[in-house]
Amino acid sequence: MTDVLSTTLASIQPLDATAVADAEARQAGLVKPAGALGVLESLSIQLAGIARTCPPAVPGAPAVAVFAGDHGVLAQGVTPWPKDITAVMVEVFRNGGAAINVLSRACGASVTVVDIAVDGDVAEGVGTGAEVLSRKVRRGTADLAKGAAMTRDEALAGLAVGIEIANRLVDGGADLLLTGDMGIGNTTPSAALIAAFTGTDADLVTGRGTGIDDETLNRKTEIVAAAVARTAGVDDAINLLAEVGGLEHAGIAGLVLGGAARGVPVLLDGVIAGSAALVAQRLAPASIDYCIAGHRSVESGHIVALQQLGLRPLVDLDLRLGEGTGAALSVPLVQAAARVLNEMATLESVMAGPDA
Amino acid sequence: MTDVLSTTLASIQPLDATAVADAEARQAGLVKPAGALGVLESLSIQLAGIARTCPPAVPGAPAVAVFAGDHGVLAQGVTPWPKDITAVMVEVFRNGGAAINVLSRACGASVTVVDIAVDGDVAEGVGTGAEVLSRKVRRGTADLAKGAAMTRDEALAGLAVGIEIANRLVDGGADLLLTGDMGIGNTTPSAALIAAFTGTDADLVTGRGTGIDDETLNRKTEIVAAAVARTAGVDDAINLLAEVGGLEHAGIAGLVLGGAARGVPVLLDGVIAGSAALVAQRLAPASIDYCIAGHRSVESGHIVALQQLGLRPLVDLDLRLGEGTGAALSVPLVQAAARVLNEMATLESVMAGPDA
Repeated sequence: MTDVLSTTLASIQPLDATAVADAEARQAGLVKPAGALGVLESLSIQLAGIARTCPPAVPGAPAVAVFAGDHGVLAQGVTPWPKDITAVMVEVFRNGGAAINVLSRACGASVTVVDIAVDGDVAEGVGTGAEVLSRKVRRGTADLAKGAAMTRDEALAGLAVGIEIANRLVDGGADLLLTGDMGIGNTTPSAALIAAFTGTDADLVTGRGTGIDDETLNRKTEIVAAAVARTAGVDDAINLLAEVGGLEHAGIAGLVLGGAARGVPVLLDGVIAGSAALVAQRLAPASIDYCIAGHRSVESGHIVALQQLGLRPLVDLDLRLGEGTGAALSVPLVQAAARVLNEMATLESVMAGPDA
Repeated sequence: MTDVLSTTLASIQPLDATAVADAEARQAGLVKPAGALGVLESLSIQLAGIARTCPPAVPGAPAVAVFAGDHGVLAQGVTPWPKDITAVMVEVFRNGGAAINVLSRACGASVTVVDIAVDGDVAEGVGTGAEVLSRKVRRGTADLAKGAAMTRDEALAGLAVGIEIANRLVDGGADLLLTGDMGIGNTTPSAALIAAFTGTDADLVTGRGTGIDDETLNRKTEIVAAAVARTAGVDDAINLLAEVGGLEHAGIAGLVLGGAARGVPVLLDGVIAGSAALVAQRLAPASIDYCIAGHRSVESGHIVALQQLGLRPLVDLDLRLGEGTGAALSVPLVQAAARVLNEMATLESVMAGPDA
């Protein structure tokens, strides 16, 4: 284990119990029936626990980290999309024309694209839509159908990249981290990670990704099942990640751990993030207390991952795009939850009249 | 039927088919897999059809209309909350401390509170949180357990108030109308309207509102069933509204019709709005094409109403507060859908390179 990972894991604290209790009491005294704001109430209490104070500040500087990588398993024909799209989309992110750029502008989030494993040349630099960072661990993973997707050292390097990005963004003022991903073929390692970490059969967690036919789905499912079978007996989270994961997953898992260590909430996107968070959960269960599920993907494995994480998604709109779009859409809901605790009148003040 | 209602109903046009087709074509050409943005895509197409142009402008001036009224059925003990709370909450709205004030500030919406049937004195005037308008049709409805909740003329007057408010808000620059309500006991007439308009048994549409015990729920259900039984053979929407509805419902139905007539989208809140929209649907089916369901309430009747309306809620967070809170929470999602059509790059432009 790298020093940065050990230090990060050791820094993750449970949520602050006093702030949680204060937030519960405050919610109970707001001018509404108890529980009437549903999930917004529990979310506001979680935010207080993360901020270690009640009321928590309303997150005002969200930052999306989009980890981009390629996947050797594409050789097995698990998607009709060509690998080159990953690098093309990095340029679309840079220039501000992708869905994640649009939805980030809508919620005031910055976008940082991290080339963690693109199998192509990506230049560092700031565009009108995003800053692009080069942190390439390798040019695409190996084919997980034939053996480990990466070495243990590469998985550790990917986790370290995610931690570094979390620290960089928080040092830059971010108070809400959003996970994003770009990688043609990355629903295959996601399904494999979910199957491996939850013990669920491959056919229950393998989905159609951006849209594949029945024949391709059957092939994809068989590949996932075979890869997971190979990991029987492997319990170590990093070894499992190396065997069947992707480097976006390593980066996102690192972002979760880094955000939790810094005491900043992490808003998860869809199935790629859900599968990556399972790695973080195994390494540091308390890190998931800092996580919020932005949305529920149509990808079947996502629900299985969310159940294991104990998270309820904020938005359920049949998205299956990735990039961080489901996380960005839910930023206003997170902000609303914090605002409720900050701004609503209490029953006591209302009953005391306007001069109270 | 009043002149204003007839004129309004006659003004409601179907969505613009050309703008809808343009939006469908534009969505298909954006730089993402087809359908990958799920409900945001269909919503963006609806917004184009409403705006009669593609891309539609991003709604930037949302306005919540909170219709406040009391209910004679409170005499039957359908809720533990006292009637006086309705007038108290109007003052909380005026002073900006209620949930709807907080969530409206979060999304930049104005709040207009309309006293349409409060059984108490409410002063007109602008507060720090809302403008309060006096449009009292009567001081509370009659007890729907004993007879009609209001006369047909009163129901018509309530509809006219809603239409007036829609026109007032649109004339003031609003480009997205949100429905809100405040009325202790108003889930009882909502359940009765849903049962009457959908032919569903009372026990399937009567819920716990802001929280009642089993005994109260049984009594509430029996009252709903008896009131609806009395309307057997009544097919006229206004007569049904008068018999078992409330004046908030009349106001909201009028707001839906008025918004549709002015070509402005109407974002519905929860079960009160859903039941009121059934009245609008019967009077002018095309008015529902202008409606967006903000959220799914935990109130069981809401799902039945949404099915009849053919609407899918944007947010599902166990809210049961009313006031317009579920509508306000979903404003950023509506804006995001419009932004996607306006701002995303096309596949064609990406493939042509940066100089295209």
